[in-house]
Amino acid sequence: MSLDKTTIPAPTIVDREFVKPLLCGAGPSDVWPSVVKAYSKPVLSPICDEQFKVLDDIRAGLQYVFQTNSNLVLAMSGSAHTGMEALISNLIAPNEILLVASRGIWDQRAADMASRYGIRTIVSKITLNKTFSLEQLEALLTKHKPHALFITHGDSSTGTIQNLEGLGQICHKYGTLLLVDTVVSLIGAPFFMDKWEIDAVYTSTQKAMSGPAGISPVAFSPRAEAKINNRKHKPPFYFDITLLAQQWNCYGDTRSYHHTLSPPLLWALRECLKEVIKETLPVSWARHTATTAHFHRRLKELPLQFLVPKLEDRLVTVTTIVLPKGYDHKKFVSHLREKHHIMILAGLGPTIGIAVRVGLMGVNSTITNADIVADALTKTLKALTKSSL
Amino acid sequence: MSLDKTTIPAPTIVDREFVKPLLCGAGPSDVWPSVVKAYSKPVLSPICDEQFKVLDDIRAGLQYVFQTNSNLVLAMSGSAHTGMEALISNLIAPNEILLVASRGIWDQRAADMASRYGIRTIVSKITLNKTFSLEQLEALLTKHKPHALFITHGDSSTGTIQNLEGLGQICHKYGTLLLVDTVVSLIGAPFFMDKWEIDAVYTSTQKAMSGPAGISPVAFSPRAEAKINNRKHKPPFYFDITLLAQQWNCYGDTRSYHHTLSPPLLWALRECLKEVIKETLPVSWARHTATTAHFHRRLKELPLQFLVPKLEDRLVTVTTIVLPKGYDHKKFVSHLREKHHIMILAGLGPTIGIAVRVGLMGVNSTITNADIVADALTKTLKALTKSSL
Repeated sequence: MSLDKTTIPAPTIVDREFVKPLLCGAGPSDVWPSVVKAYSKPVLSPICDEQFKVLDDIRAGLQYVFQTNSNLVLAMSGSAHTGMEALISNLIAPNEILLVASRGIWDQRAADMASRYGIRTIVSKITLNKTFSLEQLEALLTKHKPHALFITHGDSSTGTIQNLEGLGQICHKYGTLLLVDTVVSLIGAPFFMDKWEIDAVYTSTQKAMSGPAGISPVAFSPRAEAKINNRKHKPPFYFDITLLAQQWNCYGDTRSYHHTLSPPLLWALRECLKEVIKETLPVSWARHTATTAHFHRRLKELPLQFLVPKLEDRLVTVTTIVLPKGYDHKKFVSHLREKHHIMILAGLGPTIGIAVRVGLMGVNSTITNADIVADALTKTLKALTKSSL
Repeated sequence: MSLDKTTIPAPTIVDREFVKPLLCGAGPSDVWPSVVKAYSKPVLSPICDEQFKVLDDIRAGLQYVFQTNSNLVLAMSGSAHTGMEALISNLIAPNEILLVASRGIWDQRAADMASRYGIRTIVSKITLNKTFSLEQLEALLTKHKPHALFITHGDSSTGTIQNLEGLGQICHKYGTLLLVDTVVSLIGAPFFMDKWEIDAVYTSTQKAMSGPAGISPVAFSPRAEAKINNRKHKPPFYFDITLLAQQWNCYGDTRSYHHTLSPPLLWALRECLKEVIKETLPVSWARHTATTAHFHRRLKELPLQFLVPKLEDRLVTVTTIVLPKGYDHKKFVSHLREKHHIMILAGLGPTIGIAVRVGLMGVNSTITNADIVADALTKTLKALTKSSL
């Protein structure tokens, strides 16, 4: 075979300049400067001591951000959807019952995932822009007797945050495992895995953590761990927490190879965790609260409404905003992008056509940014009234 | 709830200096300088035009490196194991038959994955350090009538490369889909997806492509695509090629969100592809051949043996070397790392305790590096004879 016989020609890949907007959607956020630097750290081999140390650093940092003493803490090599799918496929056997307490698009996705594994999935939806009371959730547990309950802490499609304090204790009365999505809430809002008796949690790194997308931290309680250790079903290979726990050395004895982790993402996640540790969680939570409170005060001066009526239900990281009648959501979002170089997002799932979404999180959660976005919203409301409504 | 009540204390994460070795294992390789630069390009939002353009660039580059006109070409967000698991879970239904023609550890892993989906998996192993003849493979197809055949092109555990020319045509006589792993071969050795009638292929980016780990290119032939479009089973959500094809716009009509891709990895993969295009595939193949031929000439001057006897079976990117009797493989590998700052690997799977593995691929495939490694092997053979044998 001749080496020069390529028949499919090479394409031309051209570099293009573009103006990067301030990322104020529901994620990804802009990243810490230290994260950008970390990408270029040396390539690690999967079996070298240096990588082992990086994994140990990450596990320790994740125990802090999840507020857990669990050993079974690691990061999946993939988007936060790998975290979601790892929780479901490892913890719930085919034919077991999963109850999904649904407020938005992400819990619907969890239901879709679960049904693919032959899990009996029950979705209970709440009215748009509300969250569940513990009484409502307990009634659902009593009725459906599920093996597991899936719920999102923050929901970026509706801009709501679910109270979880006490829910773990209720779930455990009924023998139900509590699985929680903290993709858009962690670091921005208080979360206490152990205190709240959460059994399994996953998050993203590209939202309030201001790190790179592509790696998804997960943690499992001892109760969840026991279920994994005693299960009869096997999850997909890539999501198999038993094998991953060995690679991540969760029990201090093994270091077996499962797959090749991504060195730039490992270095970057380690660096985000250092930033969170430097700021401390309480200070980070207070910063997110202060920024968003300021932003909300500014919004009240405008002819806009909050989609979420109750203050305690409003997600600190993503605000859902109802535009005055007559505004085209797509045009509104495009105008902000094109004229003000700010990326906000239109509605998603249940909020399509109902609200636009503004995220102020991670490094972008500052009073200055809140003012920049509020000013741009003000101008956009005026500009579109004059021209294109 | 008070915001300052964290009960799990923050760990101390300390930066450490370490001497990065020249990466001459079976991967990851060192990366192109342009790849390091690309990591710090702007964060992309999953639904912005700029990300759409990056995805289009990557798809065009992948069609070139796989040598295919298929539309169903994209990159999985995960290690090459996501490519492996995507092929298996999308193309083979539960209870269908998968024949694994096994030479090393990776095809065994494919068998493990498949069995988790209820696929009837038959593993046929060949004697260590050999590859299959087309006649042997045809006999297996006749005997087992599998729905799919899985085979590795390059196998990094044994240092062998399988001839694939003509195999697709044989498979199609029997109605069998041909699934190929090119993780350690692509860019280093010629590969022609369309000409060889390969139905599905995946690869890594951190080996001969000298890019970042964490993203896995895949391609499917029209025959494989038809099977996906007509299947009744559903793969795991994260691996669902039907949904991913919409996100990656494989058919030029949709751009629907599936999961958040990793901007630094997308930019980096795009940059590797630009490097391959600049060099051209034939020149890259010739460079890998020349480097390894030089390295092998140097090895012949030493008291070492090639594990793989036949020249045409030897993988150009990874050489498996049998040490003289009495050498401890682990000590040998450690000595190279500690005294010469070169990372080679001990045996894996069937070659544990039998051979050590030296990789010269991607940016590391140069005559200079071949000499550096050969010199260090020479010194290590002497040093360990004197001291610790």
